[in-house]
Amino acid sequence: MDKKESARKGQEKEQENKVEESHIEGRNAVLEAFRSGKTIDKVYLLDGCQDGPVRSIYREAKKQGSIIHFLTRERLDEMSETGKHQGVIAISAAYRYAEVADILENARKKGEDPFLFVLDGIEDPHNLGAIIRTANLAGAHGVIIPKNRAVGLTATVARASAGALNYTPVAKVTNLAREIEELKKQGIWFVCADMNGTPMYDLNLRGPIGLVIGSEGSGASRLVREKCDMTAAIPMKGDIDSLNASVAAGVLAWEVMRQRIRGV
Amino acid sequence: MDKKESARKGQEKEQENKVEESHIEGRNAVLEAFRSGKTIDKVYLLDGCQDGPVRSIYREAKKQGSIIHFLTRERLDEMSETGKHQGVIAISAAYRYAEVADILENARKKGEDPFLFVLDGIEDPHNLGAIIRTANLAGAHGVIIPKNRAVGLTATVARASAGALNYTPVAKVTNLAREIEELKKQGIWFVCADMNGTPMYDLNLRGPIGLVIGSEGSGASRLVREKCDMTAAIPMKGDIDSLNASVAAGVLAWEVMRQRIRGV
Repeated sequence: MDKKESARKGQEKEQENKVEESHIEGRNAVLEAFRSGKTIDKVYLLDGCQDGPVRSIYREAKKQGSIIHFLTRERLDEMSETGKHQGVIAISAAYRYAEVADILENARKKGEDPFLFVLDGIEDPHNLGAIIRTANLAGAHGVIIPKNRAVGLTATVARASAGALNYTPVAKVTNLAREIEELKKQGIWFVCADMNGTPMYDLNLRGPIGLVIGSEGSGASRLVREKCDMTAAIPMKGDIDSLNASVAAGVLAWEVMRQRIRGV
Repeated sequence: MDKKESARKGQEKEQENKVEESHIEGRNAVLEAFRSGKTIDKVYLLDGCQDGPVRSIYREAKKQGSIIHFLTRERLDEMSETGKHQGVIAISAAYRYAEVADILENARKKGEDPFLFVLDGIEDPHNLGAIIRTANLAGAHGVIIPKNRAVGLTATVARASAGALNYTPVAKVTNLAREIEELKKQGIWFVCADMNGTPMYDLNLRGPIGLVIGSEGSGASRLVREKCDMTAAIPMKGDIDSLNASVAAGVLAWEVMRQRIRGV
């Protein structure tokens, strides 16, 4: 594939993944958006407003992990595009999610063993974006994130991904542990980043692999960790506790890369 | 060394590196601070004020790369601790810089081959902090940054370093290329991160080493790159241009680590 064609394919891909960041205004529209399963990144609510519909929206936003801000009527009026916000403005996701099947198809098309990133509880949008960037450059075929306890594909994530979000599919699943179990049946081995795991150089990380990265503080959840075939530790010196999640993801991903291109 | 002793040493070290973030107020005091070589992170100037001393401060701030904000008299009055700001408040660095000799001494005391990070033009404080964190955990003995074209050790850097700034010495030098030349005479080999360099797995990165990381956009400056003994590329797949500087630093640092503990 020459450069031009590659650029063209890139653009097509971009159109596929990217959807406009959109404002949803008004109580019914926002409630409906939540109920249809749309990813809402942020909700702006009129400060002090406590009636039924607004409380329902607040509950839905909490449940889905949207960021909630309380604003004055003046600020809401300023933000409003329709002039009819009724005390509620929601911002929906900037990017479309892929299916896990798309990620596997991505690997198949390239004739490569699947290489997935699975992120369990990465809450910082800069970290999520940086990890998607890393996944792209390490040759991973996609990233899987959980529906709960994670940031969505917001504009901040897109920016931090330095364009990778236009190429690397991101799938959102309800239950990470169950998804891992399904993918294991399809021959993918899962390795979980864990400070107390086996030194990564002692593991065989070749073949179809899913790299599981947890949050910086507490790592992957117990359920997810227990589903994994191996745990991998990055050997560390030094005085402090842990690497930044996106740096850890990079170091582990390039150990996978090294083993793929150089052998153990 | 048991845990308690290690914690105590950590505390001592912390006292050594950390100085309070301090306000300097008034024209003479701020000018004097600049002239004494103190690191000034931010300068707040009275908006619209154009007299001689304020213009001199503005020039010094530009020269040293301090962040400059123009504020109203009301905001300056609010910020002022002395009530006598004369239209100028400066915020000095939160952390003290080490000397390059301290870094080498740090390696000698541990009985290890020196392992330095040299950062050329890292301008984002989050990246600088993340790289100091990485340097600490990769077992590097210190970080060298240039006086110009770089952020100082601000509170943001300290936060992003997750405490590493309390342990890992950071030295600021006037001329990076000249410093590299000096250190080469002392037996340190320098390897420069460069997308067009030799694949890192093909290099011998053992022994005394300085890892040179440039800015994300343009890499290390030509002068600095030319002083280095080797250039190292991280093998990449994917569709986008380059890794985040702190992720690239991590991937390269762990290749050094791998070679140190496992051999080539």
